[in-house]
Amino acid sequence: MPNDTAILLIHSPDQPGLVHDVTGFIFAHGGNIVDLQQHIDPEENAFFMRVAWTLEKFTLDTEEIASRFAIIARRHQMRWKLRFASNRHRLALLVSKESHCLYDLLSRHESGELPVDIPLIISNHDLLRSASERFGIPFHHFPVTKDNKAEVEQQQLALLREHRIDTVVLARYMQIISAGFVEAYPDNIINIHHSFLPAFVGAKPYHQAYERGVKIIGATSHYVTADLDQGPIIHQDITRVTHEDSVRDLVRIGKDLEKNVLAGALWSHVTNKVLVYRNKTIVFA
Amino acid sequence: MPNDTAILLIHSPDQPGLVHDVTGFIFAHGGNIVDLQQHIDPEENAFFMRVAWTLEKFTLDTEEIASRFAIIARRHQMRWKLRFASNRHRLALLVSKESHCLYDLLSRHESGELPVDIPLIISNHDLLRSASERFGIPFHHFPVTKDNKAEVEQQQLALLREHRIDTVVLARYMQIISAGFVEAYPDNIINIHHSFLPAFVGAKPYHQAYERGVKIIGATSHYVTADLDQGPIIHQDITRVTHEDSVRDLVRIGKDLEKNVLAGALWSHVTNKVLVYRNKTIVFA
Amino acid sequence: MPNDTAILLIHSPDQPGLVHDVTGFIFAHGGNIVDLQQHIDPEENAFFMRVAWTLEKFTLDTEEIASRFAIIARRHQMRWKLRFASNRHRLALLVSKESHCLYDLLSRHESGELPVDIPLIISNHDLLRSASERFGIPFHHFPVTKDNKAEVEQQQLALLREHRIDTVVLARYMQIISAGFVEAYPDNIINIHHSFLPAFVGAKPYHQAYERGVKIIGATSHYVTADLDQGPIIHQDITRVTHEDSVRDLVRIGKDLEKNVLAGALWSHVTNKVLVYRNKTIVFA
Amino acid sequence: MPNDTAILLIHSPDQPGLVHDVTGFIFAHGGNIVDLQQHIDPEENAFFMRVAWTLEKFTLDTEEIASRFAIIARRHQMRWKLRFASNRHRLALLVSKESHCLYDLLSRHESGELPVDIPLIISNHDLLRSASERFGIPFHHFPVTKDNKAEVEQQQLALLREHRIDTVVLARYMQIISAGFVEAYPDNIINIHHSFLPAFVGAKPYHQAYERGVKIIGATSHYVTADLDQGPIIHQDITRVTHEDSVRDLVRIGKDLEKNVLAGALWSHVTNKVLVYRNKTIVFA
Repeated sequence: MPNDTAILLIHSPDQPGLVHDVTGFIFAHGGNIVDLQQHIDPEENAFFMRVAWTLEKFTLDTEEIASRFAIIARRHQMRWKLRFASNRHRLALLVSKESHCLYDLLSRHESGELPVDIPLIISNHDLLRSASERFGIPFHHFPVTKDNKAEVEQQQLALLREHRIDTVVLARYMQIISAGFVEAYPDNIINIHHSFLPAFVGAKPYHQAYERGVKIIGATSHYVTADLDQGPIIHQDITRVTHEDSVRDLVRIGKDLEKNVLAGALWSHVTNKVLVYRNKTIVFA
Repeated sequence: MPNDTAILLIHSPDQPGLVHDVTGFIFAHGGNIVDLQQHIDPEENAFFMRVAWTLEKFTLDTEEIASRFAIIARRHQMRWKLRFASNRHRLALLVSKESHCLYDLLSRHESGELPVDIPLIISNHDLLRSASERFGIPFHHFPVTKDNKAEVEQQQLALLREHRIDTVVLARYMQIISAGFVEAYPDNIINIHHSFLPAFVGAKPYHQAYERGVKIIGATSHYVTADLDQGPIIHQDITRVTHEDSVRDLVRIGKDLEKNVLAGALWSHVTNKVLVYRNKTIVFA
Repeated sequence: MPNDTAILLIHSPDQPGLVHDVTGFIFAHGGNIVDLQQHIDPEENAFFMRVAWTLEKFTLDTEEIASRFAIIARRHQMRWKLRFASNRHRLALLVSKESHCLYDLLSRHESGELPVDIPLIISNHDLLRSASERFGIPFHHFPVTKDNKAEVEQQQLALLREHRIDTVVLARYMQIISAGFVEAYPDNIINIHHSFLPAFVGAKPYHQAYERGVKIIGATSHYVTADLDQGPIIHQDITRVTHEDSVRDLVRIGKDLEKNVLAGALWSHVTNKVLVYRNKTIVFA
Repeated sequence: MPNDTAILLIHSPDQPGLVHDVTGFIFAHGGNIVDLQQHIDPEENAFFMRVAWTLEKFTLDTEEIASRFAIIARRHQMRWKLRFASNRHRLALLVSKESHCLYDLLSRHESGELPVDIPLIISNHDLLRSASERFGIPFHHFPVTKDNKAEVEQQQLALLREHRIDTVVLARYMQIISAGFVEAYPDNIINIHHSFLPAFVGAKPYHQAYERGVKIIGATSHYVTADLDQGPIIHQDITRVTHEDSVRDLVRIGKDLEKNVLAGALWSHVTNKVLVYRNKTIVFA
């Protein structure tokens, strides 16, 4: 692991000396910090930090890092996450009938732009099987009905565990995920909603936008929680529209937003730049 | 009126020959079209058009234009508005305590960028008197309480009539306008709401935005109707924000949006480019 | 052709009566206008117009439309183009090693979003053969050297003629097209340049942008002319960057721009909304 | 100074332990860090950092902070700047004939949004005297000719020294500043250029943009160096335009950009978030 980088994401009550203590730990074992960002929420007296350092001359191995840092963390009541840049996230893509986000992620993956593993694609329809298999990714079709939904989710979760998936991407997956499924992947299920949340929650947001006569449409990528479209927002973007644009135009124009917003949120997630806090995100630059 | 331009805004049921008929009227009397845009809403079978022509060699005077065009309009069940570019809109600015939109509009007016007359400024506070008078615009202070609100609105409407105001601009006026006031100026009261509508309707939208953790904030300028923040949207814009931005930052950043969005909507309005239809706007380019 | 639409793009010296004459022609033969936009360049006394009408009840067939309209066009010295919405553009995609624009266009094509035919893909490398063939499009590899370049271009042009290609898309094709090739497809070769033109013309624009320390990067899609990166601009877009972004980040972030800007320009082109005039474009809404 | 904040901007060769050393200094004397951002340029092996801490319980007074920190700085070959949030920047505004940026800055100043002192306004024309004096700021008129330019600049510099000005804002000042003037205020003269640099350097950028047919116009705020429009870029923004927009429209639309981009750059400057390095800026968030 000569050229690897370790990343710590930290959240704790604020108090003097936190940065000094954490950087002291890194310095003491030969690490060189390549990125450090810190954020304070003064109202909540909360401290947030992301620090990345090179492991080239680091004197602790990966397991020791965690066990030693835990001592510091305990002292300051820190919640923390340790990641290594070389440890690629393992993604499952969940899709339905729309192909644009799927193709977008698969082509980013194939070109090496998106440094992740994608062991499988899951769908409630069989429509995108060929799109998936063309890129060499196994495709699993789970027809979902009202009656079998709970059972299907159990099968899906078993499959995700089997493939050691850590991040579930809802790439225009048009099924509502149950609270139980969400609990299995807290802050690790990423959805793309085709509106500028909190505007136009729920079904057919482009129709809602057309009816309201907005001059800008948007897309929002967020972590999924038990409340529909209410999870912590990771990334958003917008495009101007005019009275010339029909609902069909909004759908077409919106696809470009959806692709880039989902990919942008995913980038922050897989580069370990996101902290979740009180149903909001800290997205370090 | 040698260099003047006439502008017709037309809305009617769609049928073949409409553009031909209207342009025939203009051509027959020596007008040269400088701008023509037409829009069809196929679902509603509705026709919309804006046409502007030079009056340099036009053979009808301004009153004749209206009376002659009325004949064509009746034939096609048109709702229409005739304006002349030389006829400057007469604006009343209504303000409360925040000065940013007021100064922005006054400086645009003074430099000649905004081709309107502003005979008066009205406020429910006395705070911006000096700001107004510095630019030579008379300032009228109407303290508003629950008890005198109806009476004050009558006094304000009398004042607006006296100054032949045709457009009322709510430049961060923090009072809700009554339905009766709205009826006196249908589609001619322009508000700036400090959020991306329909998100964050009502009070303290920046606080709402902060709580929800959005990554983009917006501002919306719309015509005022009897329903709070529900009127036809004229113009919107947005800015990115991050977890670093406190409510206070959002308020500061949002001011730039509010100024430009209100001024942009006003520009479309005073250059006679806006048609209202089913609680939406057609904003011709 | 019951539900087809005819589109006329017109450019002529300005004079009174032009719109009236053209719409008279449409009305006389039973057409109903669904979109009409007109633009005047007063300095050049130039008139531009795009009009689309339904052919459902039109009394002329497609050949008659052209021959009859030619009479009106001659009268007003019009340059004009007649297209039918049902006549899909026939595209050749030229690529080199980067796959992002290729995949983006192929997935838009496959989903039906981009209403065109793509009979072939041409490349100076063999790298994207599998990407192309996966989507069922024949791939032609033409290795290019200094010595064979002129000859290869002749072979390519022959292939384009054979497939009745009307639009050539340089989807990150890293070869300079000769003036002779350009002449074979005037205003029909679309390039994507990975900078905000006219900034950073030529090679390695992201390196140039990084060196200059810009806070925004862009992409530009334009028609190719004999002068490198100097052709008429069709569409541009930008993204914010910061000091945190390395050249490698700019390349990654810029790909999203390139995809959407090229696709956006292509959309305007294939929906027949672009007129070229004095090395600039009129892009009707 | 109970609620004051100290800010250190640091630039040095990179090496392990820098953050630890600096935060150790702060922690040792009772400071609590409220913001810390660090950036590495790996190619240049350069380290950049901004750290802000509260002085509420700090045990050193402002002079001691500097003298003590100098010891650490020397050890690591740091170039550094120490500022206190309570120490408002002292600005001179230089203007010519256009009022929009002037009014914008004056109204931000008056409302308290821009936490600076503005002891004087300087102009080469007498036109904006009343605009300035209306806001209570003394106005100094220096007519500039080819012959007296050097002498006038000496008078201006004397005036700036007399008022202890630290930041010179060229708010659409249409005179080229001499190299000698620039040297008196290195990295402290902020200009607004009305184009998206490096496109359209020099005179009449909106005319250049119109001629080139760009679909987006921009504005750039940068530190002034001896090379015209070549200084380190602080902030940029853009707006879409179309073929409908004449040069006059571009000028009007561009003013909104100029105001906000200049104000945005100034905000970063006066909140001590900008470091200059190799003709580029690090603008901390």
